[in-house]
Amino acid sequence: MSEALIQIGVVGCADIARKVSRAINLSPNATICAVASRNYDKAAAFAAANGYPLTAKVYGNYEALLEDPDVDAVYMPLPTSLHLKWAVLAAQNKKHLLLEKPVALDIAEFDEIVGACEENGVQFMDNTMWVHNPRTAKMAQFFNDPHRFGQLKSVRTCFTFAADSEYLKKDIRVKPDLDAHGSLGDAGWYCIRAILLAANYELPKTVIASREPVLNKDGVILDCGASLYWEDGKVATFHCSFLANLTMDITAIGTKGTLHVHDFIIPYEENEASFHFGTETSFDDLVTCWSKQPVKCTVKTNLPQEALLVTEFARLVGEIKFRNSKPEKKWPIVSRKTQLVLNAVKSSIHRGFEPVQIEE
Amino acid sequence: MSEALIQIGVVGCADIARKVSRAINLSPNATICAVASRNYDKAAAFAAANGYPLTAKVYGNYEALLEDPDVDAVYMPLPTSLHLKWAVLAAQNKKHLLLEKPVALDIAEFDEIVGACEENGVQFMDNTMWVHNPRTAKMAQFFNDPHRFGQLKSVRTCFTFAADSEYLKKDIRVKPDLDAHGSLGDAGWYCIRAILLAANYELPKTVIASREPVLNKDGVILDCGASLYWEDGKVATFHCSFLANLTMDITAIGTKGTLHVHDFIIPYEENEASFHFGTETSFDDLVTCWSKQPVKCTVKTNLPQEALLVTEFARLVGEIKFRNSKPEKKWPIVSRKTQLVLNAVKSSIHRGFEPVQIEE
Repeated sequence: MSEALIQIGVVGCADIARKVSRAINLSPNATICAVASRNYDKAAAFAAANGYPLTAKVYGNYEALLEDPDVDAVYMPLPTSLHLKWAVLAAQNKKHLLLEKPVALDIAEFDEIVGACEENGVQFMDNTMWVHNPRTAKMAQFFNDPHRFGQLKSVRTCFTFAADSEYLKKDIRVKPDLDAHGSLGDAGWYCIRAILLAANYELPKTVIASREPVLNKDGVILDCGASLYWEDGKVATFHCSFLANLTMDITAIGTKGTLHVHDFIIPYEENEASFHFGTETSFDDLVTCWSKQPVKCTVKTNLPQEALLVTEFARLVGEIKFRNSKPEKKWPIVSRKTQLVLNAVKSSIHRGFEPVQIEE
Repeated sequence: MSEALIQIGVVGCADIARKVSRAINLSPNATICAVASRNYDKAAAFAAANGYPLTAKVYGNYEALLEDPDVDAVYMPLPTSLHLKWAVLAAQNKKHLLLEKPVALDIAEFDEIVGACEENGVQFMDNTMWVHNPRTAKMAQFFNDPHRFGQLKSVRTCFTFAADSEYLKKDIRVKPDLDAHGSLGDAGWYCIRAILLAANYELPKTVIASREPVLNKDGVILDCGASLYWEDGKVATFHCSFLANLTMDITAIGTKGTLHVHDFIIPYEENEASFHFGTETSFDDLVTCWSKQPVKCTVKTNLPQEALLVTEFARLVGEIKFRNSKPEKKWPIVSRKTQLVLNAVKSSIHRGFEPVQIEE
């Protein structure tokens, strides 16, 4: 017997909500039941432009949607500085929460949001889409394979894109009162998550920001980087920027293997994604070429990664709603680790690039 | 009228000399005329094993080869700590000098070696083979193209390989009295050169070593890294190691373009080499895939890169010998820049990872 679809309400009509709305429409176990904006007409136009079901309700304020008893869960693409208020209210209204990243301004806020979800028995997930691509599971298998990858020694990630002048003037990600983490919260969030993936989610011990980050006139980070150190000698570096050509790489090197990927956040193609990996790659006898080269692994997917995220989120919500399961803790756990590293990088920048210890 | 081949003497029978001997044999404008070892039998066996011309003379000491008037130029694969003595003596004997890297223990030694070459009017070149691959010229064109690459913003390089226990015990690169720079001098030399290539050979202003380098019991570096900073905000990082799987990457990001290469030092194949580059790469409207992806550029070569190096070296020697040209200065200049950065990284390690200023 098939179960009812999970009813998702969209709280805010940000640009990214177009992509997630399509993803909800594509997901076999979820549907959009409502949308809210601070402006009713904007919400109605958004619903019409994004193929919402005719049954979807339109609200001119967030509270009304959060109080709607038909809404099981919400997707919340609001600016970070608004998360504390609205995410907590959503949890208090027993709405499962798919929250846009970065989750919070600091770890205290993070804990308040996730604490509210725990108290109210609702699922928390941040909207980091690429980890739901089946390629990521294949990459994780490689990282966890002692024969093919060995122990991680170093990992380098980057996410840069060349924002246009309009973006650099007006986007929420350059506004201190909206997404105050700037490129660190936006692009850096993914870099940090990728590093944690390669490290099997072991937190680094120490974080040191790179010198000479670029800030805008309001002090929001446009370009920065950091080095992360673990007690066993693992090292990671990342670089995130709004000021350089679109690039997103992971190079992870273990004692026995290496992984390369160049499109880890948004795959080149929607329906398949690749990475290169090599195990005990080697030269020929005279060191004039490679006797063992990395090979390409391509993973196909029927649904785009953002629809797989929604499907997984809705599955967990369904487990809670229909089977009395508890919320899955792994999502808030990896999200919290990402937030901890992010805030440590920011602290290091503010302390003049001093080492900052990470404490769980 | 064809000119006589440049007569090259090989000073030392290190393992790497096998590869370079083949390269000289492959070069259309050079030939091996002599080989020297501290042990005559070893030199004779080396000549026999490496296809030397029957006319090649065999010497049981380095001095005799350096005094042989038939020798135009020498290839010197001796450990770094022996370079000062033997490279200077070669120059004083008017032998053009192809010297194994790293060139010197410090910049004072470097200047003494290159100064001796200048005083004696002989060509100096270090044995950095990959820069002679025609792929490297194509990469340089990309880096220098304001429309395809723009201004360099960041570049990350690495060269790691998993040395076996025998190497880690006995190789000259782990011995403080032989190649005292360890992995920094060996693998790091290439990483630094690649960074300089991407930066159009502009020296960084400041170098900061990564924390937690790995040293062996004699204090030789097995694994280290650094960040390099330029005044205009460019940033570079590199990582070099004897303790991780074979990997060699460049990721260079400009304001308009990105370059990726995974085999920059030793190409996967001898007869062709590739890199990926993208200009103004971008997403589709919904940010679900890329509307403009990087493309692959493959460059074929009839001779392996080490033979192209020998050919270029012998060409310059021929220009001097037959046409009274002056030695080409670009090779000692880029070599010196590499040495300056290398020694700055080492200073930063010794000063507890403090920033070290680079002064030309």
